[in-house]
Amino acid sequence: MKIIITGGAGFVGSLLARTLLAQGSLAIRGAVPQAITQIVLADRIAAPADLAQDARIASEVGDLLDQLATGASNLLARHSDAQLIFHMAAAVSGECEANFDLGMRSNYAATHALLESCRALGTRPTVFFASSIAVFGRTVHHSFPDEIVDTTLPTPQTSYGIQKLIGEQLMADYARKGFIYARSARLATVSVRGGKPNGAASGFFSGMIREPLKGIESVIPVSPETVHSLASPANTVRGIIACAQSSDEAWGPLTALNLPALPMTVCEMAEGLKRIAGEKTHALLSWQIDPAIERIVSGWPTRMLSPRAQAMGMKPNASFDEIVREHIAQYHPEIAI
Amino acid sequence: MKIIITGGAGFVGSLLARTLLAQGSLAIRGAVPQAITQIVLADRIAAPADLAQDARIASEVGDLLDQLATGASNLLARHSDAQLIFHMAAAVSGECEANFDLGMRSNYAATHALLESCRALGTRPTVFFASSIAVFGRTVHHSFPDEIVDTTLPTPQTSYGIQKLIGEQLMADYARKGFIYARSARLATVSVRGGKPNGAASGFFSGMIREPLKGIESVIPVSPETVHSLASPANTVRGIIACAQSSDEAWGPLTALNLPALPMTVCEMAEGLKRIAGEKTHALLSWQIDPAIERIVSGWPTRMLSPRAQAMGMKPNASFDEIVREHIAQYHPEIAI
Repeated sequence: MKIIITGGAGFVGSLLARTLLAQGSLAIRGAVPQAITQIVLADRIAAPADLAQDARIASEVGDLLDQLATGASNLLARHSDAQLIFHMAAAVSGECEANFDLGMRSNYAATHALLESCRALGTRPTVFFASSIAVFGRTVHHSFPDEIVDTTLPTPQTSYGIQKLIGEQLMADYARKGFIYARSARLATVSVRGGKPNGAASGFFSGMIREPLKGIESVIPVSPETVHSLASPANTVRGIIACAQSSDEAWGPLTALNLPALPMTVCEMAEGLKRIAGEKTHALLSWQIDPAIERIVSGWPTRMLSPRAQAMGMKPNASFDEIVREHIAQYHPEIAI
Repeated sequence: MKIIITGGAGFVGSLLARTLLAQGSLAIRGAVPQAITQIVLADRIAAPADLAQDARIASEVGDLLDQLATGASNLLARHSDAQLIFHMAAAVSGECEANFDLGMRSNYAATHALLESCRALGTRPTVFFASSIAVFGRTVHHSFPDEIVDTTLPTPQTSYGIQKLIGEQLMADYARKGFIYARSARLATVSVRGGKPNGAASGFFSGMIREPLKGIESVIPVSPETVHSLASPANTVRGIIACAQSSDEAWGPLTALNLPALPMTVCEMAEGLKRIAGEKTHALLSWQIDPAIERIVSGWPTRMLSPRAQAMGMKPNASFDEIVREHIAQYHPEIAI
């Protein structure tokens, strides 16, 4: 079985590829498990070295919208035997606020082009679409309940959130028309992300743990009482794979579900870091409100629940300590936990 | 003041133009009323004769997406002094189910191109977007309350409904970014439409009144107990103009509101026709369930409420009799009512 991952060289995309390679097989939509023979990583950057050296990995480097232009060079036409596509590629929230055209191109036009490319195949592939908690939004006009569920009215307050909601709707219609099988899921904020900061307004939810563990100071741009829902990278990838493996019957409606996430305050995150990594590491944190970030984050939901996903057996992380320990085990084997 | 109406030669678009010409001036978004000096009707067909002979009417005949191609020939660039655009042009629900590409082009690509054209102007025009009750949908997975309000979760079950919901979201983001002022409103089913049947699945809600009054038999394709919410053409146009005239403060959120509509059963409609036009006219009605139409209509909401619009003073028709009488007064002056 061949799988395509757009954004496959990114943080979540490459972890998804590693996890799939390690598990070796996949049961698409509840069917009999098949061995994974090839994973195509489509991204603007080359595959990470560890992935590139696996014989089952192919790397397609380029701009996704260009790769999805019509004709024989179309990415999907060249991999027309792919049964499953994880559409993870996106411009992130902060980038999309700063550069409207970038977001419309990367999140809107490219998602539409991907779906058109799938339709042109005529093979009805399964498409996982990485939507986001950012489809929910709060303004003076739209308060919402403290607890957000799958069927809460999305009122996105960022271009990124609008573009993700549009992607969910396109996915549902392309599935209803029989062009694809749709698996759309709203990722919670992924923490702790490894690597370097990206342009996401939510980046500090990772940076405030990752940077101090490297001995680097980190400034938290929102108030300690800010409540937010997080999922670890491994938990997020488990949820994504569970979506792809769920049967049509278990999945239910064609619309997006919320992936499991654990709600907590930023203060609790900082306390968790102190508890696990010590006073000295915790002392590298400082607070300085950034109005632009705080404005975006204050419009996001706080407690994101996931009744549909949990009915299928998916679970949030057990604790923030588990989230921090997962990061330390991966990136800081020198730290005893 | 110059106004553009896309779909301006269509049934609702041309009635909107006639109503605006008759009223002579408009107070855009609560500002001081200005005289209407020109109304540009952009449509695939020429303006109706009565409109074409008014000196204030200009007709732009062509495919809307072609008219919105970038460059100096762009419709909006040639009318860059337009302060208000009513975006009424659309492929209708039945057409979009039968021809997916037509819907994506007419409802999705053209709406996006219109908003990009507005953005390119740099003048922040006011845009009214005609969304639809079809953004709401019912499936085995999505029941909804008997009464639909502005903030009910949209779960469209047709390509047309999906494309209208996407249009609402694009409108909200282009407004949030300051490229336009947004007025998006969901039209209820318009009845009684004059003229010929169109490709809308809801067409029989007009045909079952219009055709018998012409002495022509009409087949009703759904069960008599079907509940649906209607607005007369004049009531719909009053609502559209009220949206354009509402101040930003009165309008509130950037998202779409429901226009006022009157719920009734198809049986009550047939009885109303008998009461007003007599037994002989009523006898031209017959019932024959069309499963394709019934499937689409059964997924639509029944009782559409409009708390936001009504808080601004808009009202539904007082009765179905009022709706039928409006049609007779316009199209059948020979019938005494």
